[in-house]
Amino acid sequence: MPLKDSFELKSYTRLRAEQIDKALNSFTPSARTKPKTIHRSMRHSLFAGGKRIRPILTLAAAEACNGQIDKAIPLACAIECIHTYSLIHDDLPALDDDDFRRGKPTNHKVFGEGVAILTGDALLTQAFEIACKSKPTSRYSTADMIHELSHTSGSLNLIAGQIADLEGEGQKPTLPKLKYIHERKTSALLTCCTRLGGMSSNCTPLQLQALTDFGYNIGLAFQVIDDILDVTQTSKQLGKTAGKDEASSKSTYPAALGLKKSEKIALELTEKAFSALKPFRGKAYALEAMADYLLSRKN
Amino acid sequence: MPLKDSFELKSYTRLRAEQIDKALNSFTPSARTKPKTIHRSMRHSLFAGGKRIRPILTLAAAEACNGQIDKAIPLACAIECIHTYSLIHDDLPALDDDDFRRGKPTNHKVFGEGVAILTGDALLTQAFEIACKSKPTSRYSTADMIHELSHTSGSLNLIAGQIADLEGEGQKPTLPKLKYIHERKTSALLTCCTRLGGMSSNCTPLQLQALTDFGYNIGLAFQVIDDILDVTQTSKQLGKTAGKDEASSKSTYPAALGLKKSEKIALELTEKAFSALKPFRGKAYALEAMADYLLSRKN
Repeated sequence: MPLKDSFELKSYTRLRAEQIDKALNSFTPSARTKPKTIHRSMRHSLFAGGKRIRPILTLAAAEACNGQIDKAIPLACAIECIHTYSLIHDDLPALDDDDFRRGKPTNHKVFGEGVAILTGDALLTQAFEIACKSKPTSRYSTADMIHELSHTSGSLNLIAGQIADLEGEGQKPTLPKLKYIHERKTSALLTCCTRLGGMSSNCTPLQLQALTDFGYNIGLAFQVIDDILDVTQTSKQLGKTAGKDEASSKSTYPAALGLKKSEKIALELTEKAFSALKPFRGKAYALEAMADYLLSRKN
Repeated sequence: MPLKDSFELKSYTRLRAEQIDKALNSFTPSARTKPKTIHRSMRHSLFAGGKRIRPILTLAAAEACNGQIDKAIPLACAIECIHTYSLIHDDLPALDDDDFRRGKPTNHKVFGEGVAILTGDALLTQAFEIACKSKPTSRYSTADMIHELSHTSGSLNLIAGQIADLEGEGQKPTLPKLKYIHERKTSALLTCCTRLGGMSSNCTPLQLQALTDFGYNIGLAFQVIDDILDVTQTSKQLGKTAGKDEASSKSTYPAALGLKKSEKIALELTEKAFSALKPFRGKAYALEAMADYLLSRKN
């Protein structure tokens, strides 16, 4: 892992996050554009201090395939819009009922439920408008990329995970059910991040498979760690309400297997993610450093 | 208008609605597909007896441009998914708070608010997945068509109309504000219907402009008539709660201008729509018959 030095990764992610923020800003109507309420609200959640992990993974995957950052930017931004919309809707009283996110009041606490619903809708729609700006390559059409994005976000993946999560509340979580939820709720979108980064760079089928395996394992690891942090960290450290999963009897790894075994699983998944990157022969150093960071993060 | 005979139009719309239903059925996961709740809920609203006015307009526009129905089907179905999602979210307690739609309980009354929010999200996402199946033509790429769909559904059009409607409740409606809402809430999607029908048939720029003018005027007429029907018809005739607009002080044409003047405006708009079709020299007979029907409808 050539980029294990944490300072190196920090400057890498800061640079990439700046590029993403700049592009997201240009793709989103200004807060003065009518109707002001919706654009203020979209911007409130889009620029609420998110770490941009997903879009950075997209750019890092493009780099691993010798691609240009610029070509991956629209897809990276589209994914961040989808991630943000899913958080806004997930936080609504009818779903997870969360008051804080990234240390700030959630969208519906600031703008009200009606506007929050429409803001999620607007960001989901904007994701596809931005994705249309992605240039086709010789192997993948823009429609192929948009299909990847919509299939991942739809009723068989992202939304399937949310429904299963909603229906699983209050029930004792079993490991297969847990894996089903985590695969769809988190892993699917992270896999989509790395795959789209690759596709924007005209990656080979072998590279696409490697990025799929990497995204899948890092996605599962990411969610297991999220579950662990919910138990071990304070609300202040997390920037959202800690202990929320346990209080609402959510299906989590620590609840099903205990903390120690959950930590072991997260480590195993990260190792699988690393070995998926072998075909890149060291050129996927940014992805490796991201995986390293995701395993050791504290919020 | 060669198709003024109402029996003729009836069999035309029945045939086209059947084709749309068949395609929507094939594009939507079965009610037995996991998670069953979301697919049952999507199907509940997609197959709740909608008249399929929007997708039929798409097919009719394709026909006016000598296009094949098959090529316009994915875009027609995508629009119906967007229309259905917008109704589900619009009916939520935090927005219009409606209990009935097309004579049946609204989605959140059957499945609960959480599932209704996710069902709207799933249908909006599915719209883009279906749109990806649309074939490019020599003038328009699939990404052009998806861009049309997303721009129309986004924060500057469809959602702008809903926000303005939400914020206008309880205020005395002015004519410019009313036009702003109606243009975005209804006219934009109907314009998108006819434009996408044309684009799927590789229409000329002149034809696209004619379809834009037709869609815009028929869209405004459609909404003015909707406002009028809300005042003049009973809930049973409408299949939804009548008098709802007045009770919630919604911005409507009858509220701003009175019933008589509103009826005159609807007629004028329909005439403008008819004259927009002149470049088709009688070949847009299905669109003409649809415009005729929309003006005389009773629910």
